[in-house]
Amino acid sequence: MERILGIDPGSRITGYGVIDAERNGLSFVACGVIKTTTDYPFSFRLNEIFEGINEVIQVHNPVIGAVEDVFLATNPRSALKLGHARGAAVVAAMQNGLTVYDYSPRAVKQAVAGYGQAEKPQVLHMVKALLSLNGSPSPDAADALAVAICHANQFHL
Amino acid sequence: MERILGIDPGSRITGYGVIDAERNGLSFVACGVIKTTTDYPFSFRLNEIFEGINEVIQVHNPVIGAVEDVFLATNPRSALKLGHARGAAVVAAMQNGLTVYDYSPRAVKQAVAGYGQAEKPQVLHMVKALLSLNGSPSPDAADALAVAICHANQFHL
Repeated sequence: MERILGIDPGSRITGYGVIDAERNGLSFVACGVIKTTTDYPFSFRLNEIFEGINEVIQVHNPVIGAVEDVFLATNPRSALKLGHARGAAVVAAMQNGLTVYDYSPRAVKQAVAGYGQAEKPQVLHMVKALLSLNGSPSPDAADALAVAICHANQFHL
Repeated sequence: MERILGIDPGSRITGYGVIDAERNGLSFVACGVIKTTTDYPFSFRLNEIFEGINEVIQVHNPVIGAVEDVFLATNPRSALKLGHARGAAVVAAMQNGLTVYDYSPRAVKQAVAGYGQAEKPQVLHMVKALLSLNGSPSPDAADALAVAICHANQFHL
């Protein structure tokens, strides 16, 4: 059994999803979002991401971090902000001894929905089906679960 | 007396510079660079930046972090990488309880050399003069000292 933490980083909302990959399939552990306080200075918001991921790891003890590659925005300013957020999340995982893997949005969609251009609702639908979820996770939490599933598929866990 | 840590983040080389701002002027404490291992995965390199900054703070106990804003590269991929590095450095400062301030390259040059378009050699010259340095710090360490000086000037320390 391997416990995987999927992370979908963002400067406003960072999604996380924890799953167990076992011989007989995947199972859901937890998911949620870390919302940063928009009227705080950016350095505080980065720290909120670091501490949020840190807390999720402390509570659920994953051994693998699977982090969605940031969508390469055409706007350098957005890329820069996303880079900061992703850096804070990756460092939180590294500091807790997780092995960190990166997956492109295309690879995640391919793994979960079988199609690299899959739309958000398809990804959500497949995440729910693959993890036998009754409720609907929020979009960012679902994306994070999808990254975790992508890692499990990649390594045939 | 206020001890300031200036940081010039970069994914390959992160410069740091520690100064004391006292009533009767500025004094040099330490400076150097954190070089990341280029053939390591990017997540390891971000962790090296985090741990490097962490160590500098543990050793020198600054209370303020002054971080150079990343030059807004026209290339979104570079902006993204720099954003990651800067995020790792900022989070290291925040985790150690430092108050973090951001300064644009222009503000730093203006503060140190009196001219926002100042060239690197002028900045280096002024950093050496303002801190009464005999030797020449490396370019990235000098830039980090310049950011720390910029903060001291900003607050009339």
